Amino acid sequence: MRFGMVGGGPGAFIGDVHRRAAELDGQARLVSGAFSSGPEASRAKGRELGLDPALVFGDYRDMAAAQNSWEADQRIDFVVVVTPNHLHYPVARAFLEAGVDVVCDKPLTTSVEHAEALCRLTADRGRRFAVTYTYTGYSMLREARHLARSGALGKIRRIQVEYFQGWLARDLESTGHRQASWRTDPARSGPAGALGDIGTHGFNLAHWTTGLDLAEVVCDTATFVEGRSLEDDASVLWRWEGGARGALSVSQSAAGAENDLALTLMGSEASLWWRHTDPESLVMRDHGGRTRVLRRGGAGLSPRAAGAGRLPAGHPEGFTEAMANIYRDFLAGTGYPTVQDGARGVAFVDSVLASARSGRWTDASYSPPGG
Amino acid sequence: MRFGMVGGGPGAFIGDVHRRAAELDGQARLVSGAFSSGPEASRAKGRELGLDPALVFGDYRDMAAAQNSWEADQRIDFVVVVTPNHLHYPVARAFLEAGVDVVCDKPLTTSVEHAEALCRLTADRGRRFAVTYTYTGYSMLREARHLARSGALGKIRRIQVEYFQGWLARDLESTGHRQASWRTDPARSGPAGALGDIGTHGFNLAHWTTGLDLAEVVCDTATFVEGRSLEDDASVLWRWEGGARGALSVSQSAAGAENDLALTLMGSEASLWWRHTDPESLVMRDHGGRTRVLRRGGAGLSPRAAGAGRLPAGHPEGFTEAMANIYRDFLAGTGYPTVQDGARGVAFVDSVLASARSGRWTDASYSPPGG
Amino acid sequence: MRFGMVGGGPGAFIGDVHRRAAELDGQARLVSGAFSSGPEASRAKGRELGLDPALVFGDYRDMAAAQNSWEADQRIDFVVVVTPNHLHYPVARAFLEAGVDVVCDKPLTTSVEHAEALCRLTADRGRRFAVTYTYTGYSMLREARHLARSGALGKIRRIQVEYFQGWLARDLESTGHRQASWRTDPARSGPAGALGDIGTHGFNLAHWTTGLDLAEVVCDTATFVEGRSLEDDASVLWRWEGGARGALSVSQSAAGAENDLALTLMGSEASLWWRHTDPESLVMRDHGGRTRVLRRGGAGLSPRAAGAGRLPAGHPEGFTEAMANIYRDFLAGTGYPTVQDGARGVAFVDSVLASARSGRWTDASYSPPGG
Amino acid sequence: MRFGMVGGGPGAFIGDVHRRAAELDGQARLVSGAFSSGPEASRAKGRELGLDPALVFGDYRDMAAAQNSWEADQRIDFVVVVTPNHLHYPVARAFLEAGVDVVCDKPLTTSVEHAEALCRLTADRGRRFAVTYTYTGYSMLREARHLARSGALGKIRRIQVEYFQGWLARDLESTGHRQASWRTDPARSGPAGALGDIGTHGFNLAHWTTGLDLAEVVCDTATFVEGRSLEDDASVLWRWEGGARGALSVSQSAAGAENDLALTLMGSEASLWWRHTDPESLVMRDHGGRTRVLRRGGAGLSPRAAGAGRLPAGHPEGFTEAMANIYRDFLAGTGYPTVQDGARGVAFVDSVLASARSGRWTDASYSPPGG
Repeated sequence: MRFGMVGGGPGAFIGDVHRRAAELDGQARLVSGAFSSGPEASRAKGRELGLDPALVFGDYRDMAAAQNSWEADQRIDFVVVVTPNHLHYPVARAFLEAGVDVVCDKPLTTSVEHAEALCRLTADRGRRFAVTYTYTGYSMLREARHLARSGALGKIRRIQVEYFQGWLARDLESTGHRQASWRTDPARSGPAGALGDIGTHGFNLAHWTTGLDLAEVVCDTATFVEGRSLEDDASVLWRWEGGARGALSVSQSAAGAENDLALTLMGSEASLWWRHTDPESLVMRDHGGRTRVLRRGGAGLSPRAAGAGRLPAGHPEGFTEAMANIYRDFLAGTGYPTVQDGARGVAFVDSVLASARSGRWTDASYSPPGG
Repeated sequence: MRFGMVGGGPGAFIGDVHRRAAELDGQARLVSGAFSSGPEASRAKGRELGLDPALVFGDYRDMAAAQNSWEADQRIDFVVVVTPNHLHYPVARAFLEAGVDVVCDKPLTTSVEHAEALCRLTADRGRRFAVTYTYTGYSMLREARHLARSGALGKIRRIQVEYFQGWLARDLESTGHRQASWRTDPARSGPAGALGDIGTHGFNLAHWTTGLDLAEVVCDTATFVEGRSLEDDASVLWRWEGGARGALSVSQSAAGAENDLALTLMGSEASLWWRHTDPESLVMRDHGGRTRVLRRGGAGLSPRAAGAGRLPAGHPEGFTEAMANIYRDFLAGTGYPTVQDGARGVAFVDSVLASARSGRWTDASYSPPGG
Repeated sequence: MRFGMVGGGPGAFIGDVHRRAAELDGQARLVSGAFSSGPEASRAKGRELGLDPALVFGDYRDMAAAQNSWEADQRIDFVVVVTPNHLHYPVARAFLEAGVDVVCDKPLTTSVEHAEALCRLTADRGRRFAVTYTYTGYSMLREARHLARSGALGKIRRIQVEYFQGWLARDLESTGHRQASWRTDPARSGPAGALGDIGTHGFNLAHWTTGLDLAEVVCDTATFVEGRSLEDDASVLWRWEGGARGALSVSQSAAGAENDLALTLMGSEASLWWRHTDPESLVMRDHGGRTRVLRRGGAGLSPRAAGAGRLPAGHPEGFTEAMANIYRDFLAGTGYPTVQDGARGVAFVDSVLASARSGRWTDASYSPPGG
Repeated sequence: MRFGMVGGGPGAFIGDVHRRAAELDGQARLVSGAFSSGPEASRAKGRELGLDPALVFGDYRDMAAAQNSWEADQRIDFVVVVTPNHLHYPVARAFLEAGVDVVCDKPLTTSVEHAEALCRLTADRGRRFAVTYTYTGYSMLREARHLARSGALGKIRRIQVEYFQGWLARDLESTGHRQASWRTDPARSGPAGALGDIGTHGFNLAHWTTGLDLAEVVCDTATFVEGRSLEDDASVLWRWEGGARGALSVSQSAAGAENDLALTLMGSEASLWWRHTDPESLVMRDHGGRTRVLRRGGAGLSPRAAGAGRLPAGHPEGFTEAMANIYRDFLAGTGYPTVQDGARGVAFVDSVLASARSGRWTDASYSPPGG
């Protein structure tokens, strides 16, 4: 498979993550890109990666347009969209329209309207569209999903997600830090800060592992760093169809936090604990007090979890492999987070921001089109 | 010091905890009790403890009344109240009126009115009154308090408390289980279930470590076990004076949880993590990414934390020693959680229950009398 | 039960540990003591503990002699010996001869000859004699013993013990530190330093959990702190009857170590991991990769492990409770480490020191008299 | 860079690890191989990887010979040797003689004589030769090395390595398992089993982190699985130049162990703890009891440790990245484990096997040629 990338130029950490992940199994190769809107910066990145300069562009529209002028074996099979959020929509649309499958980072778009437009366009064109909710690639979260959905926890009572980062604890954006600049800028990040960047991961994990639909939310947002326009901290109480409750807490201004995501699913029969600091373990304890630690690569895992590893147990895998698992599923055509999952995340952000504004419990039910 | 106990009869685990803790340093001795309202059960407990039968009562009122008929050296110096919640008020009042200091379990009372009456009576009579928020006895939580209040975290931004238990995940009360029966019974437990039993611990930790006053709350409660009258699960978003936010999550119906209390304090300069499963460690990470693990018995602790241990580092202490530290402070006359701290907990429960009923953000500011 | 104590005067941490542990369940009370060979220091300790001055002595021989002049209900039921090592033998002998049961700290004596004399005297007088291998009181080590002996691990292949402390990493003895002074002085500590003080714990754990007899050892000792007479670091390879192998590593001069004891038992079917830093968990993983975490207070424990707790799961217990479990068994008359277990420890030290001198594999088989 | 691979055919897990690691940064690409001595199996692997069939061989000698008949830009820049141990020597020699740099798995060879021949040949031909001691690629072990060598621990007193696996706890080789078959076969594995496979990692870590030379060893080996020819378990006491002591314990027959490598370095001023189960943390505690947790990606790391990461802190990296770091250094021409490091490992195995046969302390000093 040949693929291209839009975004991921100098200073962008996530572009390299996607490249390594997509190429990890030797089944896809990055051949083309519009890495930056600055043509020279884009060419420099292409040279660094050893790409054919003819396939490197300064404008993604030129790259999309080129697809139709190339021979079939010159074209890219899919494009990876790792731009700031506000470009996800136009870039993804351009490539869908050019007949190219899309892998897009989250949040899918900066408005529900755009997200739904992508859902419909993907369906209309019959293309594949993955949204890289990276954590769904972790073997032990796949096992959590299996256990929650198979009834091993009984009825789900509480869904608890914490996601804390500290990198925006100070006014990093004023220093010219590229990532901080666009993520705190409504024009490029969209209406949400921390909720869009990491809150969407938290919501997706909750929905994806349990299969439950969200019903209502109440949300409180805060902006702790002076002069910042978007929230850098948010708390949500959520009510799920079927009665589960719980809380989502996210912050990007918690000094000293690394990338501390934790999921706890509590049920009538058993509960599960997973933490990103020990991603290869999943702790399950039942009402009788029996504790099991399920391990990536270990015995007794469900097929999807067992298949999400490359190394024997005890040889740590991490974030890159999790992302690679999403690419593997995308290439296989099944099991990856879809454009509808992306739309759900955008709708979630919409609901919690509405609640934060009103200070009220707010309807958060949602069903994306084209699913 | 000679002390008595009201409550703590057969099937009550907390009575023995108090006795061991109060006696641990050899400075106080249990000599008298009204362990149960069944006189025979009370006498049996007295015999088990080797007490003088003349000092064992079936009714706490007789025990209180007896104080005035005894010689000074026969009287008890303080009474420990470990009855079901609804009796805290009359028992504590009776002993205060008899001129006896009081140690009372939390929640202090089942109404703010009663709590405030005890505050005033304690002040009027010039007595000591401790409420056993046990976790304030842990060395490393005392260190957390020192660090938070001394500015080591910068400005506090987020206060996160989780407290999960699983022992009420099923309808244990119907089996005749003594603890479960009264804790799920509004007549004996008061208007709150999980919020009163463990939510008060969570609130107290947040207030006590940071010194901040609570401003507003929004709360969601659930009763997961069918037929139960009181909530067995609750979530709270809270806003503190000065701007800190965060969430409190409590459950007693989370199958498989043990007694899983966790406190996270996040600031502009550094954050702190403490978990009851590893109570002798306190993790601190600053904005620069430097991580320290402060250890009970280790170097560099503040005097209050350093003084809250009996054994060298690496010789685990636990719940009993934490409780014993409260008793040690009570006997010394300073540094223990007071009747006002108890009243704050009762007012907190009042506020969050009001919010749960209304579904709205609710004022939670409170100042107890007589402090 | 009434008990006395020999040793445990000012600056001795272990005396208070024994007192708290012995009294924890309210079944025994310290009433008498010869806490120090300085009569004034002994009396001061007695006053601190609120003891009757008539029962406090400056010389243990006077205290032993007094037993025969007292009324039956004045006598002590047992004596706790917490002196420096070289006094264990004469003190224990004196009280055995006075008809008093003995609880003695480890190592039992400073020579095999004296240890065996105590074995025989205990048997001859029909008395109880416990040696406080404290770790045998931990619930989860009792469970490890149950699992190892019940065959749950298959055939034991490897027994691995590490015990690292750092308190003697510098020349503390020259500063007048009481504990350091006698423990590094051959006249009071006996022929071994770290091997006697903590190596005996390691050997006892290995033998006690598995039930295996030691066959051969090769040992290497080191004295890292200049001017010190006794080894402060030692490594042992051991071969056990039945074929198990492994290593014991101990140090008291490892800067930064706390009291870091770890036991690993590896078998043909499963292995067990226990660490003193998390004493309430026992990790078991079988050949199929299934991992269980057994928890103090949790479900599915053997009766001895289940009975070794006082608090519900999730309420941490520690070193004091472990010691208290030995006292509880001692008072019950069964299940405590005996004078023969003490003699085994002394013989172990004898063997490893002989190997360290010769640099050769050395026979370490041993069977104590009077067992 | 273009590279080839010898070995790594069907059933070989380590070949894919090397390919992913070598390609991770996009600076090298696998283009050629002799993946298996069965030509059809080799071709099948080549097809799976999408290689040009003309560059895929059934015999490594044909592949080496082809280098001289190709144009400069067709040749490979280096070869990766991942065959069973007995082929390391002839394969590496053939490519060195063909003017190709070599990356070879450990143990370097099955005899010291062959190892030294490769040292000399590498020097004579002026080529690069890396031996993939994978653990030297971990960021936090690089930090451990920095701290140990910079004096932060004071004088090193104890070097403790444990490396436990359980995959050979049963007679897997009789089932036709490819890895188990050759690793337990002296004809292909060489004179050592567990000592060669994982003991060499342990020794290398000890030497590499501390910079100390080994002086003497005493070793005990065991073969727990009946019918097996090579040791599957070994224990070593070691004495290092300068006085450090300690133990190395390895097993491949410990049921339930995963790939549990742990390094502890203890010094006169501070000690370090690292475990493969949490590879991104390094715990350091000093004599004063101050504990720091150094984290991959965190602040305050030495340049070599800081440079050994690709993702921000809190985004787990693992085994693949560690191996990739060795490739990155190899391509940069500095900082990788050399053929001399490989020879040291082979000499170590030679010494400990000699000690195991004699039961005596054995000289283990060694200096490789050509370094």
